[in-house]
Amino acid sequence: MPMIRVEMFKGRDRDTRRAIIKEMTDGFCRATGAKPESVQVILIDVDKEDWGYAGVAHADRQPEG
Amino acid sequence: MPMIRVEMFKGRDRDTRRAIIKEMTDGFCRATGAKPESVQVILIDVDKEDWGYAGVAHADRQPEG
Amino acid sequence: MPMIRVEMFKGRDRDTRRAIIKEMTDGFCRATGAKPESVQVILIDVDKEDWGYAGVAHADRQPEG
Amino acid sequence: MPMIRVEMFKGRDRDTRRAIIKEMTDGFCRATGAKPESVQVILIDVDKEDWGYAGVAHADRQPEG
Amino acid sequence: MPMIRVEMFKGRDRDTRRAIIKEMTDGFCRATGAKPESVQVILIDVDKEDWGYAGVAHADRQPEG
Amino acid sequence: MPMIRVEMFKGRDRDTRRAIIKEMTDGFCRATGAKPESVQVILIDVDKEDWGYAGVAHADRQPEG
Repeated sequence: MPMIRVEMFKGRDRDTRRAIIKEMTDGFCRATGAKPESVQVILIDVDKEDWGYAGVAHADRQPEG
Repeated sequence: MPMIRVEMFKGRDRDTRRAIIKEMTDGFCRATGAKPESVQVILIDVDKEDWGYAGVAHADRQPEG
Repeated sequence: MPMIRVEMFKGRDRDTRRAIIKEMTDGFCRATGAKPESVQVILIDVDKEDWGYAGVAHADRQPEG
Repeated sequence: MPMIRVEMFKGRDRDTRRAIIKEMTDGFCRATGAKPESVQVILIDVDKEDWGYAGVAHADRQPEG
Repeated sequence: MPMIRVEMFKGRDRDTRRAIIKEMTDGFCRATGAKPESVQVILIDVDKEDWGYAGVAHADRQPEG
Repeated sequence: MPMIRVEMFKGRDRDTRRAIIKEMTDGFCRATGAKPESVQVILIDVDKEDWGYAGVAHADRQPEG
């Protein structure tokens, strides 16, 4: 009955999202012997303006362009 | 002082959202004797592309249309 | 597919916990038309030392005894 | 290695967001002696329609205009 | 910078916990190209009394012994 | 109405916990102009066995003793 929640930077495309869901599910099953049908995964996008590290938002650390 | 957080599929309309908030609050109070003013509820929409079950996103399981 | 998470003060007994799970589930179903089998609920106990309000832990506001 | 998550009403501007990240980080370090590089902060906007108090959404309590 | 949180039934032993952390991390990296040093994983144990499904706690569904 | 959640390594003493609650609350108020009575803080202890970084639990990186 695991519930896996992944917070990550916004902007990954749909195929990557599919791959994350698949990898999280399969990895949990390999580690524990659980069945895939027991595993849920939720992906949560976080804007770089909203994710701070060492007191500074990633958006302010990694100027795009 | 309960904080109730509801993750659910995106797309429910405002009246349904109101009803969920009301039901969660009243239900908690009935179960525990708490007062409604102590209860907070947060609703969190999750896209079907971002909610995986058994390794597959719900968006890929339940084609719309 | 809702996932309902309830953070509350530690110490409620098992029957109350059962009642909270039941009320959250039934309430969500009434509000949305969802089926009970789609609803999950997780209860999370929080110590009053670990829950602050207005800058002070509840444990320091409500001395027991 | 703390991870600080701040759920708040939607709509704060970017400078305020920067200030929150900075204050959370510095405050944690003052309280614990941790280094800023160990602290992460995530800001999460919640719509007033989605945040209920006493059974009613804040959007319905505080009509704007 | 992903933060992966795994809620699961209480009681898995330490080697299984190690394996879950490793699988979540490696799986995320395979799916996205991220580096392992960017990935954090938090494991959260939930008692079967505190995890409800269809309105009933798992502890009440799966009597042990 | 902010809700601030702090996940951190287990083991901080009660005075430190008080200080974290106070700092989070005051810092949020300084950054936003909110009143302390609107701020809640929840502290969540995470065991070093349950917090992974780069695929390895902190407990396995920092042997105690």
